Amino acid sequence: MSRKFTIGVDYGTQSGRAVLVDIATGEEKATAISVYPHGVMDDCLPDGTKLDNDFALEHPQDYLDVLSETIPAVLKEAKVDADDVIGVAIDFTACTMLPIDSNGKPLCFYPEYKSNPHAYVKLWKHHAAQDEANKLNKIAEERNESFLKYYGGKISSEWFIPKIWQILDEAPDIYNKADRFMEATDWVIMQLTGEEKRNSCTAGYKAIWHKKNGYPSKEFFKALDPRLENLVEDKLSTDIYPIGSKAGEITEEASKLTGLKVGTAVAVANVDAHVAIPAVGITDEAKMLMIMGTSTCHILLGTEEKIVPGMCGVVEDGVIPGYFGYEAGQSCVGDHFEWFVKNSVPASYTLEAEEKGVNIHELLTEKASKLKIGESGLLALDWWNGNRSVLVDVDLTGMMLGLTLLTKPEEMYRALIEATAYGTRMIIDTFKENGVPIKELYAAGGIAEKNKMMMQIYSDVTNMEIRISASPQAPALGSAMFASLAAGKEKGGYDSIVEAAKHMSKVKEEYYKPIPENVEAYNKLYAEYKKLHDYFGRGENDVMKRLKKIKANAK
Amino acid sequence: MSRKFTIGVDYGTQSGRAVLVDIATGEEKATAISVYPHGVMDDCLPDGTKLDNDFALEHPQDYLDVLSETIPAVLKEAKVDADDVIGVAIDFTACTMLPIDSNGKPLCFYPEYKSNPHAYVKLWKHHAAQDEANKLNKIAEERNESFLKYYGGKISSEWFIPKIWQILDEAPDIYNKADRFMEATDWVIMQLTGEEKRNSCTAGYKAIWHKKNGYPSKEFFKALDPRLENLVEDKLSTDIYPIGSKAGEITEEASKLTGLKVGTAVAVANVDAHVAIPAVGITDEAKMLMIMGTSTCHILLGTEEKIVPGMCGVVEDGVIPGYFGYEAGQSCVGDHFEWFVKNSVPASYTLEAEEKGVNIHELLTEKASKLKIGESGLLALDWWNGNRSVLVDVDLTGMMLGLTLLTKPEEMYRALIEATAYGTRMIIDTFKENGVPIKELYAAGGIAEKNKMMMQIYSDVTNMEIRISASPQAPALGSAMFASLAAGKEKGGYDSIVEAAKHMSKVKEEYYKPIPENVEAYNKLYAEYKKLHDYFGRGENDVMKRLKKIKANAK
Repeated sequence: MSRKFTIGVDYGTQSGRAVLVDIATGEEKATAISVYPHGVMDDCLPDGTKLDNDFALEHPQDYLDVLSETIPAVLKEAKVDADDVIGVAIDFTACTMLPIDSNGKPLCFYPEYKSNPHAYVKLWKHHAAQDEANKLNKIAEERNESFLKYYGGKISSEWFIPKIWQILDEAPDIYNKADRFMEATDWVIMQLTGEEKRNSCTAGYKAIWHKKNGYPSKEFFKALDPRLENLVEDKLSTDIYPIGSKAGEITEEASKLTGLKVGTAVAVANVDAHVAIPAVGITDEAKMLMIMGTSTCHILLGTEEKIVPGMCGVVEDGVIPGYFGYEAGQSCVGDHFEWFVKNSVPASYTLEAEEKGVNIHELLTEKASKLKIGESGLLALDWWNGNRSVLVDVDLTGMMLGLTLLTKPEEMYRALIEATAYGTRMIIDTFKENGVPIKELYAAGGIAEKNKMMMQIYSDVTNMEIRISASPQAPALGSAMFASLAAGKEKGGYDSIVEAAKHMSKVKEEYYKPIPENVEAYNKLYAEYKKLHDYFGRGENDVMKRLKKIKANAK
Repeated sequence: MSRKFTIGVDYGTQSGRAVLVDIATGEEKATAISVYPHGVMDDCLPDGTKLDNDFALEHPQDYLDVLSETIPAVLKEAKVDADDVIGVAIDFTACTMLPIDSNGKPLCFYPEYKSNPHAYVKLWKHHAAQDEANKLNKIAEERNESFLKYYGGKISSEWFIPKIWQILDEAPDIYNKADRFMEATDWVIMQLTGEEKRNSCTAGYKAIWHKKNGYPSKEFFKALDPRLENLVEDKLSTDIYPIGSKAGEITEEASKLTGLKVGTAVAVANVDAHVAIPAVGITDEAKMLMIMGTSTCHILLGTEEKIVPGMCGVVEDGVIPGYFGYEAGQSCVGDHFEWFVKNSVPASYTLEAEEKGVNIHELLTEKASKLKIGESGLLALDWWNGNRSVLVDVDLTGMMLGLTLLTKPEEMYRALIEATAYGTRMIIDTFKENGVPIKELYAAGGIAEKNKMMMQIYSDVTNMEIRISASPQAPALGSAMFASLAAGKEKGGYDSIVEAAKHMSKVKEEYYKPIPENVEAYNKLYAEYKKLHDYFGRGENDVMKRLKKIKANAK
């Protein structure tokens, strides 16, 4: 019997990448990347129309180009016949959404709308719907809406409903013209299958949908704006499909676009962080995956729906079918270290790194790794970009203390790393305290792969073993696994994610183990972190918020 | 009648400088500097004997060289006849002390002691008597010694008694051989006049002497170490002369050394910070002088003896005859900014400063001065080197909060400057709250002269006008004023410091005025500073001390 393959396509912020995977082994036979020609549009539209502050748009044609470029490329590179590709799946940044007409055509494809920013894709980091998010949260709180508790008490301006509301506010013609608002990830699947099949992951985490309760009530939408009363019926859909199910099959048109055979199975769409879970072999509860990049996203499965303070969301079938998928987040991890090297590392260090032929992070890490735990006397609160979990407060800011005239840059650098580790422990402890067990840690992303000192610190601070993704493309690999599920056993794929993970998931052999004496040393420091975390974060001294207000008034 | 002149000699850490002044106008006719050939000995003695950690010694011959080099030099440069020089006075760093024999000869001049570190001058920043200081403070507290309250509750390791005790502990032969322990400033005066006349300033601020109570009791010294029981009688002196009085006259020998006439009046010795008070025209109460350098020393006169928490000392006749002289201090001012530019300013800024041909402080100041008050959202506690006044706690450490991913180096730089201004306001408020009025501010030292942004911030934060010394050599000018007092009216000098100050003191015409809207803005920020100051500094959360302990154990 010939080998069977699936393709996973991971849509990132600047580019999309396809990976062709041997489903018997998880071997990644070929990878191809396509950079979006329009990139992130945050200054102007393609015709030169200027954009307001905080806009971040994309062009949906770029997503189709990814399909037409990368899928033929991986087939060719791997020398695999399209007949042997039994399934395809995608994952995407989220909430990344767009308005379309009744034929699924993006409104920005219409010449008459090409100068209207609201006709384009609103990327996840489009932050111009903050006013709408603030109003939404206020009204939801006043109405005591029960959905708030699933999202740590706050709906983000990055999410689906605020973005739609902004379109209604600023471009009612686009709102009216739109037959549908869709997540880009669902829209791409529709281009492959010809059918609208929305996924439970984006619906649950980004669009305030709940498997039992559905969307918020008409009354709530009416309270936001009378014109939104029938939003769900008119422009969304209540048909939501669980992650891991099949969305449909490659159409004639999609076959021409991609080179895949008509009838190839297509999985329901997914989100980049969440899809990485099976890629590291997680298919059941109590194992938390940290996807570590500029920020860190934490994904965890549970068997019960618990309300955990500060989580980003809990969604049934949102990550792995049959489980409640929990998401939490730290808004500032890699960004933290980037800020530091850009703003706080002296010229003498820059020069030393140049002379040694290493980058500045490597130099600082080398120096910091020689420090004993607690030797710097420093302690930081990792809130340079606010705190997502567990405090859900964008108005918190960073702090460092213990500074002396002998404090060195590598000591501050390490203190920032440790602060993010303490932040992770705070999340883990909070989940555990609220009845969601965590027994193992996994990590994926560039930082997890590269920075051994940091991962050992995380292991010591959390007193847990940490396993690292062995795929540099964990999301794309995860998508390839869901593609094998969409194909099903009959077509040579798998019928369960457990089975797929057994064959396809990958973690490195080497893993991090907590060192007992380090654990003890960090327990003392964490106790100090926790005390300051609560003092500044839970209302005892709201100095950070008052300073932010003073700052806003000063400008 | 011919013009009359005096000479003031200011002994610093690395060099001594003489200034020849026209006493009718205060005009500085000539200045000469002599760098100490032996410098600060913190590594080894002249014969190569290695020194322990925290030792900082000097060689008394260097002090005599200052006299023989700089006094003839200023006479020559100013083309002034020694007949027209009616007085000479000196000021010194303190406590800077040495053991001498019964003829006033430093023990380090003896060949048999030249390899013994304890035979040399212990410079003010000799920190190797910390153990003795700790024991002294513990015993004084246990005995409930009343003198502690005059010194903010703690005797510093830099001061006279701990330094003597260290000699007894580590070199009992030197202790026994020593006929006297003297402040270097008094010893130099003895070289000029042939007489031992100790000054009230160093006795009061550094040697735990009180005008009414004298030195601590025999019982106390015995409790420290039985061998110290008769220290005062055996090796010090209870004859203490008020600042502003005459110590004696130039001897034959001193005349040969200096070129001054035999019989020229010599003032009682003084301390560099305290002597600057009349140089800026302060001769009565409620005017605080800040001498701003690596650290800041605050001097203030009052008409009553009050116990002010955290002051460094209160001494009757210690600064100006007839007044109680108060001293307070901030242990980290210029050092703060030096630490920052060395450890936290990125290469891009270093390059920009080079391209603009300015130093890095000028570049940061230029950028920081464009910021509105509160615009950075930052707040710091200026404790990088502990806190002297008002908390008297070396175990406190620096803190900064309000950091975000957009925080820039100039914002942190300005936050550090503002933190030192808040620290000053805390000192001022504490004096006022404890019954010592402060109505005007004066500043001297390099920072005060150069950094206009900083001085305006100080004026706005304290809501007080600030006048700046017009002499680049305020201490030497102050000494020249006390020299005119030693000469007295009959010899062409002055009989009162008020009269001397009227003619000789100098402040710049331009001064700093608080800007009402800035005062209001800083009031809000100061309220936040105060809250954090008390939280971290007064025991609510001793995290800084606990981190210091963890740090000490880690090393």
